[in-house]
Amino acid sequence: MTTPVREVVKHAKAASRFLSTVSCHQRTAPIRAAATAIHQARKSLLEANERDLAAARAMLASGEISSSTFERLQLTPKKMEAMMQSMLAVAELADPLGRVLQRTELDSDLVLEKLTVPLGLLAVIFEARPDAVTQIAALAMKSGNGVILKPGREVEQTAAELVSIIQSSYESSELPAGAVTLVNGRESVLALLGMPELIDMVIPRGSRQLVEFVQANTRIPVLGHSEGVCHIYVDAAADFPMALDIIDDSKTDYPAACNAAETVLVHQGIAETFLPMLVERMQSRGVQLHGCARARAIQRDDSVTAVPNGDWHHEYSDLELAVRVVGSAAEAIDHIHRYGSSHTETIVTEDRAVAESFLAQVDAAGVFHNASTRFADGYRYGFGAEVGISTSKLHARGPVGLDGLTTYKYVLRGSGQVVRSYHPPDGKGFTHKRLPTN
Amino acid sequence: MTTPVREVVKHAKAASRFLSTVSCHQRTAPIRAAATAIHQARKSLLEANERDLAAARAMLASGEISSSTFERLQLTPKKMEAMMQSMLAVAELADPLGRVLQRTELDSDLVLEKLTVPLGLLAVIFEARPDAVTQIAALAMKSGNGVILKPGREVEQTAAELVSIIQSSYESSELPAGAVTLVNGRESVLALLGMPELIDMVIPRGSRQLVEFVQANTRIPVLGHSEGVCHIYVDAAADFPMALDIIDDSKTDYPAACNAAETVLVHQGIAETFLPMLVERMQSRGVQLHGCARARAIQRDDSVTAVPNGDWHHEYSDLELAVRVVGSAAEAIDHIHRYGSSHTETIVTEDRAVAESFLAQVDAAGVFHNASTRFADGYRYGFGAEVGISTSKLHARGPVGLDGLTTYKYVLRGSGQVVRSYHPPDGKGFTHKRLPTN
Repeated sequence: MTTPVREVVKHAKAASRFLSTVSCHQRTAPIRAAATAIHQARKSLLEANERDLAAARAMLASGEISSSTFERLQLTPKKMEAMMQSMLAVAELADPLGRVLQRTELDSDLVLEKLTVPLGLLAVIFEARPDAVTQIAALAMKSGNGVILKPGREVEQTAAELVSIIQSSYESSELPAGAVTLVNGRESVLALLGMPELIDMVIPRGSRQLVEFVQANTRIPVLGHSEGVCHIYVDAAADFPMALDIIDDSKTDYPAACNAAETVLVHQGIAETFLPMLVERMQSRGVQLHGCARARAIQRDDSVTAVPNGDWHHEYSDLELAVRVVGSAAEAIDHIHRYGSSHTETIVTEDRAVAESFLAQVDAAGVFHNASTRFADGYRYGFGAEVGISTSKLHARGPVGLDGLTTYKYVLRGSGQVVRSYHPPDGKGFTHKRLPTN
Repeated sequence: MTTPVREVVKHAKAASRFLSTVSCHQRTAPIRAAATAIHQARKSLLEANERDLAAARAMLASGEISSSTFERLQLTPKKMEAMMQSMLAVAELADPLGRVLQRTELDSDLVLEKLTVPLGLLAVIFEARPDAVTQIAALAMKSGNGVILKPGREVEQTAAELVSIIQSSYESSELPAGAVTLVNGRESVLALLGMPELIDMVIPRGSRQLVEFVQANTRIPVLGHSEGVCHIYVDAAADFPMALDIIDDSKTDYPAACNAAETVLVHQGIAETFLPMLVERMQSRGVQLHGCARARAIQRDDSVTAVPNGDWHHEYSDLELAVRVVGSAAEAIDHIHRYGSSHTETIVTEDRAVAESFLAQVDAAGVFHNASTRFADGYRYGFGAEVGISTSKLHARGPVGLDGLTTYKYVLRGSGQVVRSYHPPDGKGFTHKRLPTN
């Protein structure tokens, strides 16, 4: 099985090299064409999806997959419409390639440019969502990258149909169809992860287990994160109704999201007053609270249970919330650095100085003042489309848009210069003059 | 041994968190103070170095170290002066922190900033060069990062003296001295590499073996590269004297450098004429040529030997150069992608269209037209100081300046906003208005 996968990947790599040289117009046309074709192929897509669903029903019956997984892989006219719209939205985005980030004259007739270029070849390993195919393919197409898609087996038939439509749109645009390719089978995942010389980035889209498996088994850079343990610190100078609204939204708007809050840290000066209000609000929203000894002592009933296993580094991803009383903003920050996942951290306070100190000191991809953690999202940040959210500090951090699929190269245009002429003490000096970038 | 190293690293991490919040002035003052102190401590530095040299002489005699290693670890008044000057130069650089890369109004009273911040804690593992201590420490100080230095054992005494001077300058500036720390011993390398939760980046400075060892033994991001296999493609439309000058400079200016050329690719249309000229020039410079069958057939004497082991992916790092005749620019580019290390690739041609196509198609950190590969260097690019050269596509690519030691975070300042109010179809819209960044 390994040899065919390697051949597919080598072919995709060559195709991606070609894509890096074509114009934005050429890269964008097949995205629009594919969106239209998906609309026209609704019937055959639903048929392919029905084959996946037939197998999935058996898995559902035997408990192999959950009903939420079943729901995710089911294609509906509404979902297909959304897929099409999101492809068209990516087509509209500004070209991420060929931007001159810096232009410097090193000497006369010797000019250096720092220019954005595609990463090269992406491998996307995803689970049951058919819309992962169209979303990632559109982003890869717009950014001139090749992409290998490895779907979960529950969605193989649907994914194959979608990829075939996208490949046709590349062919009609006279671009290499192999630039978007599907591989199947569990063993192909390990094969892909073992090709750092061909694949420039792996993007796992799915469960925490999937992300951790990918991270542990490859030397290829991985875009993504396995955890989102986000905190809200309610300062002594917080506006209580605002704090309750922000906690409510951060926890209950979409509890399974990585940017949902898992822990609330409450300043001791307001804990006696604020905690009962928090308990009431959370109970009204069906959220179970877990707390530290001080929080439980204040509450004095069983509305706040102990933190399971004393584990403060836990992503509940559900209607559960941990709460801890802290002595100061500094103690809250220590807690965040100790138990957080560097994803998104919020302070609620009316004291601007405390807020600015929190924003400066907390080391995370997102640091928020008086706003819900749920704003940490590419669409809400205004990026148009999102590749994923990164908690890595290198390359791209936080919600990652099209830019995260690019790198840069230095282009130097000379007229025969050699470095020997510039060696001190007698050589020429460099001018190092910044030139306009447009 | 592991426990003490971990304690040192935890302490340095805490110190680095503090550094991330201080002003540029506060970060810069101790760099200048340390430079002055090094100048004043010349005598004790030479004494410490002499203790290293005493041990090194024995190792030199027994063949454990080479004479070039011995030379590298030897401190001289001239080297100390250069160390001081280079620290002062780093102190002069623009502040890499707190730059607003993007500012977006998401809604009224809800503003997002993308802000540069330090990476956090760096670990630098280097071999015999004492100047690695001052250079890296100055860059870390300027960029608000903590740094753990692990010197080669040949230079431990000198490094300890230098670090102690730098720590004193931090103390006099009321900054945490633990932010710059030395660890010794081979076992501490593995300990450092096993702390991805504390160390944000590893920078190996030394032999290819060192870099490869580090890359193979850590999940921490590594800045650096193990290979520089750079090419020069001499096109059919090349100016011959220019091509000879560029090849000469790229190969002989500093053959051990990663940006030295290893292979020349010659268009078949000019090979008969150009090769004899190349052979003559290289012979005059003491460079041994290795060639493909066609090159050797043209030359018809023993001036061009076979490529050792047929290995075109070889970094000679010496006065040896491989030469291959290719049928076209496309064939040259294929060769570069197949055997290169994505470091720096040059085309020599008077044909602008061929040049632009080469610059667009070649996937490398540096793509040059009519210029020596040796220009790939932070100082020559105008970065002031260089952390190293990266052949990775992620984070920083090519020569890496101070910017490579920073990341960014998103700072969101709100007034109680929750995402629920923005959900379609009835929610508010985002304004997503770009605001000026200064």
